[in-house]
Amino acid sequence: MTQNTKYTAEHSEITRNPFPASKKIYIAGDIHPNIRVPMREIELTNGQTLTVYDTSGPYTDPNADIDLTQGLTPIRQVWIAARGDVEEYEGRQTLAVDNGYKRETDVPGALLKAEQGLKRTPLRAKTGKNVSQMHYARQGIITPEMEFIAIRENQRRQEVIDAEREARLKGESFGANLPELITPEFVRAEVAAGRAVIPCNINHPESEPMIIGRNFLVKINANIGNSAITSSIAEEVEKMVWSTRWGGDTVMDLSTGKNIHATRDWIIRNSPVPIGTVPLYQALEKVNGIAEDLTWEVYRDTLIEQAEQGVDYFTIHAGVLLRYVPMTAKRVTGIVSRGGSIMAKWCLAHHKENFLYTHFEEICEIMKAYDVSFSLGDGLRPGSIADANDEAQLSELQTLGELTQIAWKHDVQTIIEGPGHVPMHKIKENMDLQLKLCHEAPFYTLGPLTTDIAPGYDHITSAIGAAMIGWYGTAMLCYVTPKEHLGLPNREDVKEGLMAYKIAAHAADVAKGHPGARYRDDAMSKARFEFRWMDQFNIGLDPERAMAYHDETLPRDSAKVAHFCSMCGPKFCSMKISQEVRDYADQMGVDEKAALAAGMAEQAKAFKELGSEISVPVDKIQKLA
Amino acid sequence: MTQNTKYTAEHSEITRNPFPASKKIYIAGDIHPNIRVPMREIELTNGQTLTVYDTSGPYTDPNADIDLTQGLTPIRQVWIAARGDVEEYEGRQTLAVDNGYKRETDVPGALLKAEQGLKRTPLRAKTGKNVSQMHYARQGIITPEMEFIAIRENQRRQEVIDAEREARLKGESFGANLPELITPEFVRAEVAAGRAVIPCNINHPESEPMIIGRNFLVKINANIGNSAITSSIAEEVEKMVWSTRWGGDTVMDLSTGKNIHATRDWIIRNSPVPIGTVPLYQALEKVNGIAEDLTWEVYRDTLIEQAEQGVDYFTIHAGVLLRYVPMTAKRVTGIVSRGGSIMAKWCLAHHKENFLYTHFEEICEIMKAYDVSFSLGDGLRPGSIADANDEAQLSELQTLGELTQIAWKHDVQTIIEGPGHVPMHKIKENMDLQLKLCHEAPFYTLGPLTTDIAPGYDHITSAIGAAMIGWYGTAMLCYVTPKEHLGLPNREDVKEGLMAYKIAAHAADVAKGHPGARYRDDAMSKARFEFRWMDQFNIGLDPERAMAYHDETLPRDSAKVAHFCSMCGPKFCSMKISQEVRDYADQMGVDEKAALAAGMAEQAKAFKELGSEISVPVDKIQKLA
Repeated sequence: MTQNTKYTAEHSEITRNPFPASKKIYIAGDIHPNIRVPMREIELTNGQTLTVYDTSGPYTDPNADIDLTQGLTPIRQVWIAARGDVEEYEGRQTLAVDNGYKRETDVPGALLKAEQGLKRTPLRAKTGKNVSQMHYARQGIITPEMEFIAIRENQRRQEVIDAEREARLKGESFGANLPELITPEFVRAEVAAGRAVIPCNINHPESEPMIIGRNFLVKINANIGNSAITSSIAEEVEKMVWSTRWGGDTVMDLSTGKNIHATRDWIIRNSPVPIGTVPLYQALEKVNGIAEDLTWEVYRDTLIEQAEQGVDYFTIHAGVLLRYVPMTAKRVTGIVSRGGSIMAKWCLAHHKENFLYTHFEEICEIMKAYDVSFSLGDGLRPGSIADANDEAQLSELQTLGELTQIAWKHDVQTIIEGPGHVPMHKIKENMDLQLKLCHEAPFYTLGPLTTDIAPGYDHITSAIGAAMIGWYGTAMLCYVTPKEHLGLPNREDVKEGLMAYKIAAHAADVAKGHPGARYRDDAMSKARFEFRWMDQFNIGLDPERAMAYHDETLPRDSAKVAHFCSMCGPKFCSMKISQEVRDYADQMGVDEKAALAAGMAEQAKAFKELGSEISVPVDKIQKLA
Repeated sequence: MTQNTKYTAEHSEITRNPFPASKKIYIAGDIHPNIRVPMREIELTNGQTLTVYDTSGPYTDPNADIDLTQGLTPIRQVWIAARGDVEEYEGRQTLAVDNGYKRETDVPGALLKAEQGLKRTPLRAKTGKNVSQMHYARQGIITPEMEFIAIRENQRRQEVIDAEREARLKGESFGANLPELITPEFVRAEVAAGRAVIPCNINHPESEPMIIGRNFLVKINANIGNSAITSSIAEEVEKMVWSTRWGGDTVMDLSTGKNIHATRDWIIRNSPVPIGTVPLYQALEKVNGIAEDLTWEVYRDTLIEQAEQGVDYFTIHAGVLLRYVPMTAKRVTGIVSRGGSIMAKWCLAHHKENFLYTHFEEICEIMKAYDVSFSLGDGLRPGSIADANDEAQLSELQTLGELTQIAWKHDVQTIIEGPGHVPMHKIKENMDLQLKLCHEAPFYTLGPLTTDIAPGYDHITSAIGAAMIGWYGTAMLCYVTPKEHLGLPNREDVKEGLMAYKIAAHAADVAKGHPGARYRDDAMSKARFEFRWMDQFNIGLDPERAMAYHDETLPRDSAKVAHFCSMCGPKFCSMKISQEVRDYADQMGVDEKAALAAGMAEQAKAFKELGSEISVPVDKIQKLA
């Protein structure tokens, strides 16, 4: 790849090595034979394989040829074109202010040059057309995106339907509908009902379709973004790649300050996952950071700008109503959402209703022309557990539910953002209210943090809440890094946040009884029991760390085939003894076991020694066992 | 301190610096004026102070003179002596085999020398006496230990009873009884009922009394231990100090191999927290690691040995019954408890019932002569989520409940150990069964881990389960480090595990509505809202990390008084805008607020501009607000 500008200089550091013992596989569709659904296949040392969900895109495929200056292969381009409802058009002219400069002459030449290979002619819906996946779904159309998702969600789980299947399926789903296998028709029906969302702007054809809904695997989002204070464009692109490597299902670009338009082009053109933004941040930049100076016109122009670039979902704080603002005055931490506080300030300064609310139907018109999904922002979310589930938060939630119905009237896909900071005993209430007030539109929460006392560890305080709310029905969890409340996350912080959230999402899937979840846990446990050390590392979420931690204590290769580990050493190994118990039990006769179960040790001994047969009443065995 | 042997060489590295902006304070008793209850007082920049629970003992008191070769001041010695029911006696002779050597001549001279200052003449109950706290409690006696605990649990919380008190008390306690203030009598009654335990061997007078019960603050335990493969005695002592620094309420010494008797002396003599052990590990060492060779006599001798040293609670796997062993044969991961597998092997090899079960009343006699508490081991706990809440686990739990009643007959304090690996949807069932089957004896769980797929991150997979089971009623949480399943934890791993578990325990306290929990969260949130950066760091669980993370992005001192942070920069700061909203609301008239709440923006504007007064129907405001 070229390294001809300061913006590309660091791109050679993009992480591309595949996971150990893993290869990328692609599954073709039935309805749409031309789709290729990526998965990661892990090769185990016992000859078996394990297929896992893979968000990392072509970056972990050694056969993929990637040139960051030109962007990824637009895999959805032909699907979009084949529907015949879009048109190319000249699009909006990029302005100096889009990148935070006053005049065209202020824009660095290097920035413009670096953008060259990534500029695209935008698409939009033809006049009178609606290109949202919800619209197609409601027409009864199964799009390639939908079939792609059905295959992707299943992860070849039909191959692991086995004797332990029933045990795995026993969960508590709190009303979620988790079919044993996902069909393309199921995906369509869920999207049509608004219970699931496929974020896929027609101007982001590079993305691999994924779905957000409580009847599917719980997803996670990673926030990245430059800042007025630190970071560079190159760092941000690698953060996106790095985020998807560790399981980020979507990425939000929360950049502010200089070069944000260009940053967004770089990220979207190179992203295999949907990208979300908060357009208000850029709109505010365009009015020099003065909330009162925001106008519908500036905001609308920003929506168009970002829709043309390919942003897949917009956080829009349309529920921060004027009458809710005074409700926050008595809070311990007031308004903590950036978007929420900006709109609150605007409302108070003008004594007018939030313009995002009053122009909501016009926003819907834009959303459906590009298939941008709403992520209705929770501008009044609590910023401390003291403020959780209060009047301000719940009033806004009710308004978001009303807006959802307006969006659905336009066949615009919609998810609802949620908190934040919520103590454990208030999480279920929050989830239940969201399902009720927002008509089962997918919930997308930040954490929630379950205590406020651990800055530096908020990936953990919030993973607890995230796992619980995911179990209760949240469809996507926005990660929190260890730097939350303190500073900007670096590469390691991003990974720590993602790992905590992959754990939370998976724990939620398991607890729901999702048919495509627990087989991975069971594969790990079997590898543990059989001392297949390399498999234990490779089945896990972070093979490198697992092996490194193991090697800190027992570095030699021989330890990786040893039938013991460093915790107990060879003499004490419980797994080893347990295997002996199993072997012993295998040798026991049926009646010997029965006698043991009935508490008759002497008889059992007799069976063993004599091989004799007597009968023990079955009811007595069951009662005692 | 002396550094005259290889066992002391590293002791100069014992961590003793106090926490920033913190000082150790001591509160005297009313009933027992000579007790001095330690707490940590954090000085805030706004002139207020915050008192927090402090497990770190004299190590964080700069005025404390500590000589590790002589042990800590035996603060409980006079209380114990004053009861007049104990006697000194010669005690058991320390044998070479206690330290893992074959002959006396094999024991290194340096080891013996290092032990000199730490040898004590043991105490035991006089003939016919019972020195357990449960026994005193049932006689109606409020011991100094009980008053100490009442003061300690309260943490001067009467000083933070304020306007927000009621909001903080609204939790879901699932039947736990959480009085607003803990009285010495409440402590006594809980211990008498068996719902709480005070682990305090009369031979460990150095320990600061603490309590384990679901009507008190949730506690955490850290496991430390040497190993046949790595580590030294010096490392283990510092691990204990390090563990208590970061909040470990008790420490379990799980050492095996060489020098374990000496290691235990060093740890106990220098430990301000109760020490637990699994005597079976040492007993097995004494029979060269061959489970079949274990005898009641060897085991009994080990109990006496450790009781004389001052171990405060013993994990005893008396519930692994012969008839339960075959129930584990079909499990995914068999028996994963070391103690459980050792006893299972012994039972099968001899075709006899577990000798810990058959000799249980004899064990009770030993326990009450020293006030060692039972921690009834869950030898059949699940080692994977696939095996959670199965027949083997629940059968053993029922037996532990029966043994609890036998222990209580002897006035012996008892807690019950629990799993392990449990998916979220099975945690509540496990807790409820424990309360029922074990008659509300305190539950002490390891995690549980809520998924098996994240080796390297099991402090997080398990903190999720720990927080939940703590909320539901577990009294103490045994920590899990990131090295779980992989290797031996180092210093940083121990800290990571403790932080995850302090978070879990505190999140549980908050969710229960514990009156002594949420004031710390609220103090943090207020510091956040008021941009008191130093207070945010210092109120948190790990001030050093919080400040270091903050400084990575904004290192200058000026940033610590800035009214913005690195996440948003000065222009976007939501907290700053929020403060403006609050100031604005403060300036509003009552009727202006009412009109806003009623959705009448124009009227509100009119109020502001004209200062006029009209009345809005109260019911309409309430309905809309």
